[in-house]
Amino acid sequence: MTIIEAARTAATGILTATADAATAAYRDAVRTYSREKLRSVAMVGADGTDTMFVDVLVEDAIIGAATAAGANILSEERGFVDVGSAITLVVDPVDGSANAAAGIPLACFSAAVVVDGEFTEAMTSWLHTDERWWASRTASEYRTSGCTSLDRAAVSMLRPHERNRDAWWRVASAATRIRILSCSTLESVFVATGASDAFVDAGSDTHRLMDIAAAVVLVEASGGAVIDAYDRPVEFDADLTKRWSGIVASTPDLAEELRAAIAG
Amino acid sequence: MTIIEAARTAATGILTATADAATAAYRDAVRTYSREKLRSVAMVGADGTDTMFVDVLVEDAIIGAATAAGANILSEERGFVDVGSAITLVVDPVDGSANAAAGIPLACFSAAVVVDGEFTEAMTSWLHTDERWWASRTASEYRTSGCTSLDRAAVSMLRPHERNRDAWWRVASAATRIRILSCSTLESVFVATGASDAFVDAGSDTHRLMDIAAAVVLVEASGGAVIDAYDRPVEFDADLTKRWSGIVASTPDLAEELRAAIAG
Repeated sequence: MTIIEAARTAATGILTATADAATAAYRDAVRTYSREKLRSVAMVGADGTDTMFVDVLVEDAIIGAATAAGANILSEERGFVDVGSAITLVVDPVDGSANAAAGIPLACFSAAVVVDGEFTEAMTSWLHTDERWWASRTASEYRTSGCTSLDRAAVSMLRPHERNRDAWWRVASAATRIRILSCSTLESVFVATGASDAFVDAGSDTHRLMDIAAAVVLVEASGGAVIDAYDRPVEFDADLTKRWSGIVASTPDLAEELRAAIAG
Repeated sequence: MTIIEAARTAATGILTATADAATAAYRDAVRTYSREKLRSVAMVGADGTDTMFVDVLVEDAIIGAATAAGANILSEERGFVDVGSAITLVVDPVDGSANAAAGIPLACFSAAVVVDGEFTEAMTSWLHTDERWWASRTASEYRTSGCTSLDRAAVSMLRPHERNRDAWWRVASAATRIRILSCSTLESVFVATGASDAFVDAGSDTHRLMDIAAAVVLVEASGGAVIDAYDRPVEFDADLTKRWSGIVASTPDLAEELRAAIAG
């Protein structure tokens, strides 16, 4: 067994232990603190955005679990915590933290494993129900819907901004259904399982790597595609200032049609 | 005890029995049938819209439970089933049936009780988790957020259409957050509990009575307001062709500001 093979074998256990820690910390947080406290800004994260108190609580638990298990961790608030491991977890401790802090039960722990520079497996866990979705690059129990055309697609989107108003509207008016769940990793899971046909940031460059890293594994292993609206590779990068406009789609054809609709 | 008092006492038990029947039928349906079958059009409902197979399965179970318990029922597919009772249930068997049929776990059973022409109590039940929210006109354990201003409000919306594009955009750009969960009764529950500040149909006249009937009780008893964008009363009416553009808000002030934003 090479070092890389050994790392891959260890990673699934580390993912599970980290998800367990995230769920326990999240549930303790919503039981213990008020909504005002949970959504208060606790710090400015390593990614340059405000970090809510609920994020800090869950992330601290995750970092403890991951590093104890021997993995490096790249996370939005603390940045890159390097313990010299062959395994790195790219983590969103609470994706949908605005939902979580308000009491909308749509928030997930999500992590992708990086070995030797490549995403190898990923897990997203719905914190409210503890339902979990896992896949590796080569094995998924899910299949996307197979939808190839935007005019037959149900599409999840990030909310519109003034800067991408026209692109947003082009996608929204072409699709058969639109949803905005404000939880990128859960919306990506629904593409992997075939419940939804696509999830897009329609060119607003809001996505950080941890918003779409798990989708690269979960959706692509299930028959779909993950690309960027502006053709940047969606790959491991420790620079947390980078942004993407992720397109997560049930097929490569639908991903390309969405890219064209965003470009206008 | 008058007949009306007796009817009010009986209604809570009928609501619970009907919710139990809905949950059991929904879970049996998603276990038994494919997504294609669940979302296939089974009939044209009494409300004039296509009815999915999943709706028919759950509605049949609900009608059985409600009429066995001695209540009339007004429901989207079968219309008004009158057994001569003093109690009428206005029911949405599966609100968010497109979600349910696709595998997006955001769908609810929702019912409002009508006695002597007035809504007296209501229950919404999240079919995926069986979490239930109940209130009467005079008693609620929930409180809305108390938000009074659109520029500080997190707003759930129906998806935009060409016919209400400008009104939709006015609301979406003024609010701090936008969500589209495609499940009106759950989005209304979140206003009652203070998780969200408002839920609106921005003037597209898509809402049927059963989409917002439970909100009239749950949200108003929790401190909020339910109005129509075009000033039509939101009240019991057995005519299922009627439509509203419901505004469900944490306060009367916020409801009025949303109405003004939709009017433009």
